[in-house]
Amino acid sequence: MNTRTAFSYLARTWQLQVPKHFQSIAGLSSRAYSSSTPTPTMALKPPQPAARVADRRQDVWTIVNEGAAASPKQPIVNMGQGFFGYNPPEFIINAAKQALDKVECNQYSPTRGRPRLKKALADAYSPLWGRKLNPDTEITITTGANEGMLSAFMGFIEEGDEVIIFEPFFDQYISNIEMPGGKIVYVPLHPPPNGATQDSSAGEWSVDFAELEAAISPKTKMIVLNTPHNPVGKVFSKEELLKIGELCVKNNIIILSDEVYDRLYYVPFTRIATLSPEIESLTLTVGSAGKNFYATGWRVGWLIGPPHLIQYAAAAHTRICYSSVSPLQEAAAVGFEEADKNGFWTSAVKEMKGKMDRFNEIWKELDLPFSDPEGGYFVLVNMKKVKVPDGYPFPDHVKDRPRDFRLSWFLIQEVGVAAIPPTEFYTDANAHIGEDWLRFAVCKNDDVLENAKERLRGLKKYISS
Amino acid sequence: MNTRTAFSYLARTWQLQVPKHFQSIAGLSSRAYSSSTPTPTMALKPPQPAARVADRRQDVWTIVNEGAAASPKQPIVNMGQGFFGYNPPEFIINAAKQALDKVECNQYSPTRGRPRLKKALADAYSPLWGRKLNPDTEITITTGANEGMLSAFMGFIEEGDEVIIFEPFFDQYISNIEMPGGKIVYVPLHPPPNGATQDSSAGEWSVDFAELEAAISPKTKMIVLNTPHNPVGKVFSKEELLKIGELCVKNNIIILSDEVYDRLYYVPFTRIATLSPEIESLTLTVGSAGKNFYATGWRVGWLIGPPHLIQYAAAAHTRICYSSVSPLQEAAAVGFEEADKNGFWTSAVKEMKGKMDRFNEIWKELDLPFSDPEGGYFVLVNMKKVKVPDGYPFPDHVKDRPRDFRLSWFLIQEVGVAAIPPTEFYTDANAHIGEDWLRFAVCKNDDVLENAKERLRGLKKYISS
Repeated sequence: MNTRTAFSYLARTWQLQVPKHFQSIAGLSSRAYSSSTPTPTMALKPPQPAARVADRRQDVWTIVNEGAAASPKQPIVNMGQGFFGYNPPEFIINAAKQALDKVECNQYSPTRGRPRLKKALADAYSPLWGRKLNPDTEITITTGANEGMLSAFMGFIEEGDEVIIFEPFFDQYISNIEMPGGKIVYVPLHPPPNGATQDSSAGEWSVDFAELEAAISPKTKMIVLNTPHNPVGKVFSKEELLKIGELCVKNNIIILSDEVYDRLYYVPFTRIATLSPEIESLTLTVGSAGKNFYATGWRVGWLIGPPHLIQYAAAAHTRICYSSVSPLQEAAAVGFEEADKNGFWTSAVKEMKGKMDRFNEIWKELDLPFSDPEGGYFVLVNMKKVKVPDGYPFPDHVKDRPRDFRLSWFLIQEVGVAAIPPTEFYTDANAHIGEDWLRFAVCKNDDVLENAKERLRGLKKYISS
Repeated sequence: MNTRTAFSYLARTWQLQVPKHFQSIAGLSSRAYSSSTPTPTMALKPPQPAARVADRRQDVWTIVNEGAAASPKQPIVNMGQGFFGYNPPEFIINAAKQALDKVECNQYSPTRGRPRLKKALADAYSPLWGRKLNPDTEITITTGANEGMLSAFMGFIEEGDEVIIFEPFFDQYISNIEMPGGKIVYVPLHPPPNGATQDSSAGEWSVDFAELEAAISPKTKMIVLNTPHNPVGKVFSKEELLKIGELCVKNNIIILSDEVYDRLYYVPFTRIATLSPEIESLTLTVGSAGKNFYATGWRVGWLIGPPHLIQYAAAAHTRICYSSVSPLQEAAAVGFEEADKNGFWTSAVKEMKGKMDRFNEIWKELDLPFSDPEGGYFVLVNMKKVKVPDGYPFPDHVKDRPRDFRLSWFLIQEVGVAAIPPTEFYTDANAHIGEDWLRFAVCKNDDVLENAKERLRGLKKYISS
């Protein structure tokens, strides 16, 4: 076959969009270059991507954003993604502005982070750890909590090592574990038994410890915890964490504890690293300035842990990002230096709990059961009673997903409120556990929450009791 | 053996520092916990790191910093690392401050970058590309150029794929290629034949095209270019780039062109992506706001390329960092919107070339040959004529490295000026090529450059002509 035919064949069989430069190569379009273009040697086969990025299934964020764009209820109220609808407190914004005026704060940070932030974190967390943390050996700064977790996986996971995670999970865990070749072993969190018929506490989502123990193999290298949990809102109890910690000590499993919502809890909060020296020796705790200070776009996170874990996570971080954003590290340092003094953490909890309770009034009004969060800013609501009319027009990529995707689409179109379908955070095998729930983020201004409630009243006609 | 003995054995044989928590576990120290600590189950074997981070050889930055700390000539003049000794221009700093006042600029950026920055880049680079770039499909924002390159490797390299890089190389390339399992194939840049005895141009560092062609195999997936080159200062000529590009088209090799110093060139600069549609269809061009705007700590970079390459690099970026720092993306957007208008690029070149020429006067004075850079802010100086006194006391980890490491240490101790030994950027087999050179960064205030020159006069007594 000639060039043109060969290309058309490729264009038909190749699943991606037809790249215009390959069109050009194949003579389908032309373009003048000032340089003396050599006799075209054909590069007909577009370079193939690595398997790790070749998955073409649409992610939940794209689907929800598309749904939002297609909705007749503009502008929709976006309670999907967990970004804040308001700014970081003024003392931190001012600190960022001051950092921008300092030459050294605009240049490379040391790879492990700016000394002022490491010290501020050591000072802030030492009382919570019950001993003095060493800022140079037990703390390392990362490019957001996300890259902190990737650094931990890159630092310890080899091809074939197993990592246990609970379902539902924060979706980035999956690719971050698979990138260094890790194999994921899933253990479900079981929903409250009566979660579909009555209000429950997020604490009732439970671990079956026999299931957890059965998931452990000689290849298990790490387990990922998340407390307060996204999307469930569960704060793991001290007893649960002790049992998990003991299993990890017994089997020499590294504990990666994602505690990015660590300043937002409405029941007593336990940090697994503080339960015993044995457990601490295996624990990397993940934190986030973005979550702590209402600035998810700042990309400043950290890991706290013993030197023999931190050093390798830090080495991986250096190889991934080299260093993290300097001026905003400096601002986060000021945040920690001043937050305790000016009562910021207390007011942050009070404010978020107020938003949570204010928003959740709507579920009582609609008689839809919700899982009352023990921490964080997400609430799961059970929509089993919401009846989507027969033959409702869903696009194909939504129709084929579990019911919560269809519910999410339905809400966006009918009442103009966006929420996240939690089965995105489940494996296919366990997706049925989450298919009646939707996740709402309440880290929004109060008028936005009231607007959302008013719109959600439009669901009444679809609810059967 | 009992616990204590077992631990002492481990402490002796284990190469790393003895972690205090394992001391604690073994009963070598005690610590009270408020929680009811379970019967200690011993986690005696510290978790082993992944091979990719287990290399214990000290990196050049650590050695130079240690040397600086140990020098009697305090404070030393640091011309080692390429950070700027001055702030970004005021219009960009002000833009960053204004972004900090906007709620949306402090929250998650879209994973491919903030629309304003993508548009500003498309507007700025379209004239240089000679056609209109699509900001949504042909540009993606990354967390610095470093993570941009990692994203490209993660997007396309599978275990065993080969990547060609020129020596000397920017050191981060190595770990970034190896992380997804790539195998590196090295091709040396050959130094000017008389570089040890007379001044030369950085353009005289040359590619042997027979060597390059011989390095290509059926497994070659990518080649990395760097122009203007760090540390050599070479700007690849259009003829060189055309030959490289033709080889890549012929063999379907992706070109990753690291052009982070793209606004600092002192001879005509060619962008390989613009040479032909065939070459462009295989090229990802890497850029950096940190390098462009004197803010190496901002971590804002980008990739420009055809959609069929960008989409997979962007997918990898999402999995690595999720998104990049929001407020500083906004500031970088303003930088590009205004730089052309206010003549910033022209003044940046003039200013840096002035620094380069001002600093390099010292080599003429000392009669040390240097390789006059065609771009960027690094200069390589040949120190073959510098005689280090016999028996000069070097620490072991310096003594065993090539001569340029010893030269670097010697300069720091004797005259208090820090420079980078370039053999860090060579494989062991080719290190001999670089062992008489040192790399100086001139992106410093003029008084710092003058101070460095005054100190370097102290070398006179060690120079034989």
